[in-house]
Amino acid sequence: MRDVHVGVIGLGNVGSGALAILSANADQIALKLGFRLQVAAVCSRSVHSGAPDGTPETALRTTDWREVVAHPRVDVVAELVGGTTVAREIIDGAIANGKSIVTANKELMALCGADIWDRAIKSNINLAMEASVAGGIPIHAVLREGISGDRIVAIAGILNGTSNYILTEMERRGESFDAILAEAQALGYSEADPSADIDGFDARSKLAILSALAFGERITPSDIFVEGIRRITAQDFDYAHQLGHTIRLVCAARQTERGLILSVRPALIPQSTILASVKGAYNAVWVKGHFGADTFYYGRGAGPNPTGVAVVSDLMRVAREIRSGSPERVSPFAHERLGEYRPVPIAFQHRPFYLRFRVDDRPGIIAELAGILASKQISLEAVLQLPSDTKNDLPFVITVEPSSEQAVREAVEQMSVLKFLKEPPLALPIEPGF
Amino acid sequence: MRDVHVGVIGLGNVGSGALAILSANADQIALKLGFRLQVAAVCSRSVHSGAPDGTPETALRTTDWREVVAHPRVDVVAELVGGTTVAREIIDGAIANGKSIVTANKELMALCGADIWDRAIKSNINLAMEASVAGGIPIHAVLREGISGDRIVAIAGILNGTSNYILTEMERRGESFDAILAEAQALGYSEADPSADIDGFDARSKLAILSALAFGERITPSDIFVEGIRRITAQDFDYAHQLGHTIRLVCAARQTERGLILSVRPALIPQSTILASVKGAYNAVWVKGHFGADTFYYGRGAGPNPTGVAVVSDLMRVAREIRSGSPERVSPFAHERLGEYRPVPIAFQHRPFYLRFRVDDRPGIIAELAGILASKQISLEAVLQLPSDTKNDLPFVITVEPSSEQAVREAVEQMSVLKFLKEPPLALPIEPGF
Repeated sequence: MRDVHVGVIGLGNVGSGALAILSANADQIALKLGFRLQVAAVCSRSVHSGAPDGTPETALRTTDWREVVAHPRVDVVAELVGGTTVAREIIDGAIANGKSIVTANKELMALCGADIWDRAIKSNINLAMEASVAGGIPIHAVLREGISGDRIVAIAGILNGTSNYILTEMERRGESFDAILAEAQALGYSEADPSADIDGFDARSKLAILSALAFGERITPSDIFVEGIRRITAQDFDYAHQLGHTIRLVCAARQTERGLILSVRPALIPQSTILASVKGAYNAVWVKGHFGADTFYYGRGAGPNPTGVAVVSDLMRVAREIRSGSPERVSPFAHERLGEYRPVPIAFQHRPFYLRFRVDDRPGIIAELAGILASKQISLEAVLQLPSDTKNDLPFVITVEPSSEQAVREAVEQMSVLKFLKEPPLALPIEPGF
Repeated sequence: MRDVHVGVIGLGNVGSGALAILSANADQIALKLGFRLQVAAVCSRSVHSGAPDGTPETALRTTDWREVVAHPRVDVVAELVGGTTVAREIIDGAIANGKSIVTANKELMALCGADIWDRAIKSNINLAMEASVAGGIPIHAVLREGISGDRIVAIAGILNGTSNYILTEMERRGESFDAILAEAQALGYSEADPSADIDGFDARSKLAILSALAFGERITPSDIFVEGIRRITAQDFDYAHQLGHTIRLVCAARQTERGLILSVRPALIPQSTILASVKGAYNAVWVKGHFGADTFYYGRGAGPNPTGVAVVSDLMRVAREIRSGSPERVSPFAHERLGEYRPVPIAFQHRPFYLRFRVDDRPGIIAELAGILASKQISLEAVLQLPSDTKNDLPFVITVEPSSEQAVREAVEQMSVLKFLKEPPLALPIEPGF
């Protein structure tokens, strides 16, 4: 069979990783496919000062991506540039030239994946995006093929390695958020501007893609409630442990009677659950199916090699399909449009909550807080106070029985103006076991 | 597009589960595929006394599988009979009639999967077998597509739910193997003849299939060292916990300098590892890739619904391919034949070991055992003895530093004749973290 030719655009971490794997595993890939995957062109701004290891001598080296998408030998384009501007032009250019596409672009696919898919299908090309979510975990293959016969009821994941590293190190060492963040930045685990990681935006894009795949509904980041981890303290872990729980930045999507409820937020999860065992920069996805019940997937969330494996595996799948002729395609992304999984506001969700206060201690505080909770029909469950050195910045915790998000939000807002509070209450949902 | 028609042979747990899912999810399946999956024929010995829920009125009901594989409308045959006799005839019949095949048959695929694949490819039909290993975990999709670009270095799994249930209940409740086995049998978790589960043969078939997929080598059950869990006692868990470990029936395949070492055996694994958190009847597979590093997959190992999801997902994949025309196929099973992953005897493996003795206590026992270990160049690491009521059946444990399996086996054999031993020593490898 004729070989399939690849054009790689973007030679950063992921692009270099993919080229190295294509080169090192070339024989094994050929055995699996029955033909070879050849790199016909590579493109980056600095390609003339040296292409990465694994770039074939014969490959076109260019700084102009247009030469790659228009290259007559290129069958499939790997868009590894990221972002939503040039990457969008590259994908449009590839579609216009009838080239199939492999992308690692979570931001672009989260924002307009369904539209890109629709156009790809009209142009009879294939699109693959395994590397866009949870680099090392083949969760797209799982949802698209492995458990495609099931009806997904819920997904929950840890999809941002940096924030998980920060939380699990705070937990392990009892240090502050700021100290661990500074360390993560020094180690290169976190960007100079850490907002995308610690404020949940990166994870939100990934959850949008996973939910679109799992539920077949058009879901964009704006459908997802997001809250970051900046307010979590080492003491919050002490209180969570007292309750048999830990704290993670949980990405959750659940089918409810009202519709789909989606959120990225720090939450208490039971320490005994498998999701709680995900430490450091690892990612994980838990899936609940109506028939298949619980399955769980775990691996590295990022890095040139794990993400490179995802890109190369996608290239192999797309190449196999290119050699099989022209199948009729159906978008795996937002295909359903039955309305059954329409996103609804998180205000409809009911959960037990963990409310953590920092107060200037004086008599009557609990009575006042309990009065506000009662006025919102929220039932108090427990009051916890660990030993503390100081009375003028005293942390303590109230847990409440399952209550509507709306009621808890109103109560927190009303509490926030109370003079004895050093800062507004921190409200974290207590999630059931995954 | 024209619908694809399915013939289901075998209407036990898995067949009934698959039919129920095909019926309940019919609309969603049609949205995902772009055409419908229709059940055209069902076959079982008792089909005339009632076909399962979800069987369409229009489907042929027959007790003769030959009518299904020869049925002109059937495009794909689901072989859900199990065993290696009739199932083999059914698969041969389907190939002869040009029908694609979905099978849940671990025993047959472990014994002659590579040959069946080769014949299927020659006949230009497709074959899928997701349900043959770890029912609810889509590990075939993961190895075939999700991480196909990687080079697998090792896999380790818990692949038999019954034995894992027995071990984790012994651990949780401190009860004997016999007591928990009897309970598992009463609950229907274990067969009247439990040997396939507790002696490791069921898990061995599954490991043979997974290894053939992961390493692309012809591997049959006879290449795999097997040892069951009958000799594990509640006290072994106490000792393992002292060492920070637990005990599981571990299925392992590892690339070494000498070749591939394969085993199904009870082993000590660190309590802190994610594999140790797999409880009850769940299954799990840990995969180490050269590039993608660690990934981990977890879910139900059996049951009509999880296994039914695997069968239906396979039917969807095969149906999609049937509608795409006739691609050139390459076996995903034992394709490599480079010799790099040739199975070698476990005697070559080096591991630290846990040796548990039951003795009639008297002076000089440790000296005698230590002497035998020294004569085999095995370095003793620690001696552990938990409090005990009795002196004439006293359990204690010796751990040894990494030693060759061969040397340990010789030492155990030499020890077995010692008069003060109530039974031969129990030797369990201590596995590194997965």
